[in-house]
Amino acid sequence: MHKHGGDVYRNAGVIDYSANINLKGMPEAVADAAVEGVRKSFAYPDVECEELRKALSEEEGIPAEYIRCGNGAADIIFSLVYALKPKKAILLAPSFYEYEQALRASGCNIDYCYLREEAGFKPDEGLPEMIDKDTDMLFICNPNNPTGVLCDRDYLGKVSDRCRECGTYMILDECFIDLIDDPDAYTMKAYLEKNDRLVILKAFTKLYAMPGLRLGYGLCRNTGLMERIKEVSQPWSVSLPAQMAGVAALKEKEYVRTSKEEILRQKKRLVTELEAMGYKIYGYGANYIFFKADDDFSRKCLEKGIMIRDCSNYEGLQKGFYRIAVRSAEDNDILLKVFRELKEGL
Amino acid sequence: MHKHGGDVYRNAGVIDYSANINLKGMPEAVADAAVEGVRKSFAYPDVECEELRKALSEEEGIPAEYIRCGNGAADIIFSLVYALKPKKAILLAPSFYEYEQALRASGCNIDYCYLREEAGFKPDEGLPEMIDKDTDMLFICNPNNPTGVLCDRDYLGKVSDRCRECGTYMILDECFIDLIDDPDAYTMKAYLEKNDRLVILKAFTKLYAMPGLRLGYGLCRNTGLMERIKEVSQPWSVSLPAQMAGVAALKEKEYVRTSKEEILRQKKRLVTELEAMGYKIYGYGANYIFFKADDDFSRKCLEKGIMIRDCSNYEGLQKGFYRIAVRSAEDNDILLKVFRELKEGL
Repeated sequence: MHKHGGDVYRNAGVIDYSANINLKGMPEAVADAAVEGVRKSFAYPDVECEELRKALSEEEGIPAEYIRCGNGAADIIFSLVYALKPKKAILLAPSFYEYEQALRASGCNIDYCYLREEAGFKPDEGLPEMIDKDTDMLFICNPNNPTGVLCDRDYLGKVSDRCRECGTYMILDECFIDLIDDPDAYTMKAYLEKNDRLVILKAFTKLYAMPGLRLGYGLCRNTGLMERIKEVSQPWSVSLPAQMAGVAALKEKEYVRTSKEEILRQKKRLVTELEAMGYKIYGYGANYIFFKADDDFSRKCLEKGIMIRDCSNYEGLQKGFYRIAVRSAEDNDILLKVFRELKEGL
Repeated sequence: MHKHGGDVYRNAGVIDYSANINLKGMPEAVADAAVEGVRKSFAYPDVECEELRKALSEEEGIPAEYIRCGNGAADIIFSLVYALKPKKAILLAPSFYEYEQALRASGCNIDYCYLREEAGFKPDEGLPEMIDKDTDMLFICNPNNPTGVLCDRDYLGKVSDRCRECGTYMILDECFIDLIDDPDAYTMKAYLEKNDRLVILKAFTKLYAMPGLRLGYGLCRNTGLMERIKEVSQPWSVSLPAQMAGVAALKEKEYVRTSKEEILRQKKRLVTELEAMGYKIYGYGANYIFFKADDDFSRKCLEKGIMIRDCSNYEGLQKGFYRIAVRSAEDNDILLKVFRELKEGL
């Protein structure tokens, strides 16, 4: 059974609010570049992703040698774990499931730092205190998925310092950071130079609405680690359409700006209306909203033609927690109508 | 430094004979399906590859539950190794490099069964004799890459029986088998039911000339192993364009038939002419030819605008061994002209 959002293949005919994809859809120029990539796919993709890494280097302000591209960010997660072979890792709970899957696949012991509902699922001093010399790896996601909660840089700086002291690899997932209002105030990219055990994960998937193409990347100063990742991965992991789409995507400044404005507008409206209806909301830092409702809420939504993410299968969550993507005004009308009906017991 | 064929990105402007891609190029309907996949890539790909596995099941005559799709066959190679965590494996040498890379990434000890030039690089009784109860895994490629040498089914049946006796997983790479003259006489698919430790690897890459899209698959009766592969892999490894291209490719019967005829015709011509020029040829079972020439032959070819595969970095080979893809009549004219000039010291 598929445990993720976005399974439109076994839920035909419903509107999908379970995958957090940019509401504006894939930019036309990105699709066109991917199509050009298809037409050139009689050749192998570039194993070095040279052009894409050069474009990313300019965009991120990070040397190209610090950049590793993968078949989605999930590919980098697995490669990191296979490269580092950690014995003991710390995960926040709830958080993105693939950290746990990759660590278990590699036989790593996992300690969970449980985020508490009473604290609004915000991590606290408990996390740096858990990290010790035996901690090989920590995964942390900012803004967190599924909670949508943002951590500030002071806090993450403390966690990074603690990781550095203990020789712990800190894998910081910023896959949704470019969808928040002010990424520059939150990204930890400036810490890459300070901490060579810090790896930042990013993806094209959500920001450019291209999950079907699979493209993500990791940033890290530690070229030895980059070499080890290469050794544990197949050479051709990033398809040619994905590489070419990525290069085109980085030129889409106006798309990013306007889609973020629209996400913010739609998000404010959804949050206001959901709270007015009495739904308890926890986080909405990026383009999704994490909230509480009845235990069988997602099933009832599906009966009314909308698919939302039931989060009860996340470690650290029970039944009754849900996540919705912020979609277009029209789609949000439909969602709000359904949510209102369910509140009124219709 | 990239160790494979097909690096057209750092060798612009040359004709590439180093990657063994179907000379007819990607079928138009396959490219169109991939383009449709791009246009739908605002959604995640199907984690179950349901439609593709159904089509493959019909094509291969194998239940869909026995089929695992991956981001190229290389993805399945790594997943198998990460799932099985072998301690000791046997590889033939020379053979495809990614078996070794995946095993080393997982910390497995490798014993090489060296193929001898005197025996025309054909494996013999030495291989089954090497396999014992401590052998966790064997990779064998038929026809072998880079040698082009085919093993008959009697021989592989003996190897399979020996693997079964010893509890050894036999990973049989048939990625090029559909490009040989009579695949039905060589494929070991019928042995899948007999030996649940037999895994057959196949790819769309070569037959349908779509290496840039990344699509391969594994066949195995052992559903427990299939489950373990799933556990050690990201859910979205196969992109949507690749899945849709794969479904379209399986309808291309006429393309396969005519391209195989053309490959056979071109191959016969190349083999005849190369032998007449005095080049020593070892194998040409599929759409590539493995031969011997001067130590710096590939460099000289590159100077004349053609890129061939220098095989000296394969375990078990020294300088002087090369592989060329069988390309179109026009491209082969150019290759033959260059080879003739080099023979004449021009």
